[in-house]
Amino acid sequence: MRTIEWKEGKVFLIDQRKLPLKFEVINCSNYQEIAKAIRKMKIRGAPAIGVAAAYGMALAANSSKAKSYEKFIKDMEKARDYLACSRPTAVNLFWAMDRIMKLVKTKRDISLLRLKDLVLQEARNIEQEDVEINKTIGRYGSTLIKDGDNILTHCNAGALATADYGTALGIIRTAFAEGKKIHVYVDETRPVLQGARLTAWELMQERIPFTLITDNMAGFLMLKNKVNLVIVGADRIALNGDVVNKIGTYSLSVLAKENSVPFFVAAPLSTIDTSLESGEEIPIEERDPQEVTKILGKQIAPMGVKVFNPAFDLTPNRYVEAIITEKGIIKKPFEENIELVVSR
Amino acid sequence: MRTIEWKEGKVFLIDQRKLPLKFEVINCSNYQEIAKAIRKMKIRGAPAIGVAAAYGMALAANSSKAKSYEKFIKDMEKARDYLACSRPTAVNLFWAMDRIMKLVKTKRDISLLRLKDLVLQEARNIEQEDVEINKTIGRYGSTLIKDGDNILTHCNAGALATADYGTALGIIRTAFAEGKKIHVYVDETRPVLQGARLTAWELMQERIPFTLITDNMAGFLMLKNKVNLVIVGADRIALNGDVVNKIGTYSLSVLAKENSVPFFVAAPLSTIDTSLESGEEIPIEERDPQEVTKILGKQIAPMGVKVFNPAFDLTPNRYVEAIITEKGIIKKPFEENIELVVSR
Repeated sequence: MRTIEWKEGKVFLIDQRKLPLKFEVINCSNYQEIAKAIRKMKIRGAPAIGVAAAYGMALAANSSKAKSYEKFIKDMEKARDYLACSRPTAVNLFWAMDRIMKLVKTKRDISLLRLKDLVLQEARNIEQEDVEINKTIGRYGSTLIKDGDNILTHCNAGALATADYGTALGIIRTAFAEGKKIHVYVDETRPVLQGARLTAWELMQERIPFTLITDNMAGFLMLKNKVNLVIVGADRIALNGDVVNKIGTYSLSVLAKENSVPFFVAAPLSTIDTSLESGEEIPIEERDPQEVTKILGKQIAPMGVKVFNPAFDLTPNRYVEAIITEKGIIKKPFEENIELVVSR
Repeated sequence: MRTIEWKEGKVFLIDQRKLPLKFEVINCSNYQEIAKAIRKMKIRGAPAIGVAAAYGMALAANSSKAKSYEKFIKDMEKARDYLACSRPTAVNLFWAMDRIMKLVKTKRDISLLRLKDLVLQEARNIEQEDVEINKTIGRYGSTLIKDGDNILTHCNAGALATADYGTALGIIRTAFAEGKKIHVYVDETRPVLQGARLTAWELMQERIPFTLITDNMAGFLMLKNKVNLVIVGADRIALNGDVVNKIGTYSLSVLAKENSVPFFVAAPLSTIDTSLESGEEIPIEERDPQEVTKILGKQIAPMGVKVFNPAFDLTPNRYVEAIITEKGIIKKPFEENIELVVSR
């Protein structure tokens, strides 16, 4: 199944907290449940969060009892504000909801019933387009991969992080489907272990050869010339090419630079926050300390320790070789080239 | 209690696999049990392994039924070879056993009973000297720490990694005891979590302020200027200053260099392998894949994944600011200065 799907007035999604030990599909019947699923990381990954938020807005539209357009807009804005608080960093969340709100605001002359249909259709479009975008990213990105390459990836930028297919993993899928003999090193990605749980699970299903490592082993592999390129996803990209992505991405980028390993970021253009000149301004979400002190419910540290748990970090643009998007591979200077691609 | 102690013909040691959730002392009554405790990491940390191996040799001496000196030497060599296989990387293991064997080989003209006593005394000396050495390292190292410093450390180079007091943590203990207001960032140190389990436990007991992080957060803290210096221990150091230490150390050293954070290694001179010109030749132990795929018995990755699990990595000397030993702080050029200190 898809990571997230609309069926009969409900949103069905794979509970990613349960993978890889259990494959469980849950359903949300209102936008508050969508927000909770995002907050609890039952669904995660910037593009997937975007689709989830769009469907959250569709649920909000469906359940609105408004009789007037003005009241309907108010209901939708309320849902948007609620969903906006679920996770602060991934810009796709805001992008998807803005797209829905823009539609709603330009369609004041049709019936509310028809408008609700259009909202759902727009959410479906966002989902469908995401898959197409990922496949295009896959084709562009695969040109960077040579037969025999060892690719290192962090976190999960796969089918589970998107509507389907994936960004970083989409590239790996494409290269593999094209018959390239590749091997992937998968960072386990503490604290939430998206690499060990989700990326490993996806690659196993696709029979793409891979090796699981702890995050602190990646540098040593690069020093030993075991990694040809690094590809990661992104949660938000500034106009200057600064990238905010899962915690640990910055470290990888520095290690890659030090060892002359090219470091690529794969993301749809919806990940680029055109309101931000630099990544410094991007809010970095801090999450529950228990993500660090407990693993799958097991306490690993002394009770009561103080914890720092940023979910993301900032990779300054100087460490990024190129950004792979659905409109091609954006190279340096990012300040000029991102603007060019975005405005195309 | 001490990390490891000889009492009434047995060796008592804290089971470090159980910490911090349980404080449990186990005892070993023969050298095979010592080897097993080392292999299973019930006792770990280069200096502590050295002491454990010395006591293992004392147990071997005690249990030897040899009637002749020649047979006794054979028994001791058998024990040494057995213990040598327990963990290949930490040189202190070999250093401690060589010291015992050297003693044994120069005392062929005394009774075996007396010789067995001397072996035990030498093991006790190694234990006792280790504590003194750590306190001296602490005093030298503390001169590098300023009031208000944030110190990042990896793995556990504390009392538990030594006979007592610790190397990297010994320096932190000294600085704290001297009244310096310091704060420590503790890498959890996957896969075996010595930071989250052991270093956090030690610092908590000493009431030294600290914050626990996952390994992949350290770089971001450095980028944000939250770290003033990094201090780690070592499992083996080559004559050129290359350092082999817990996996993840290399990455930290690169991140420190990139962010102009000084990177220090604290270790007794027994950690320096004077037979090696460079660290390239040091064997890197690979451990059970289950250390990566399971945490405290809980499966975190899909069953059957391929894993790479090196216990250590190599930090080339260019990333090391200085090596803090019981004979002072060794600075660059290491090629000259290590030789000088070792031959003193």
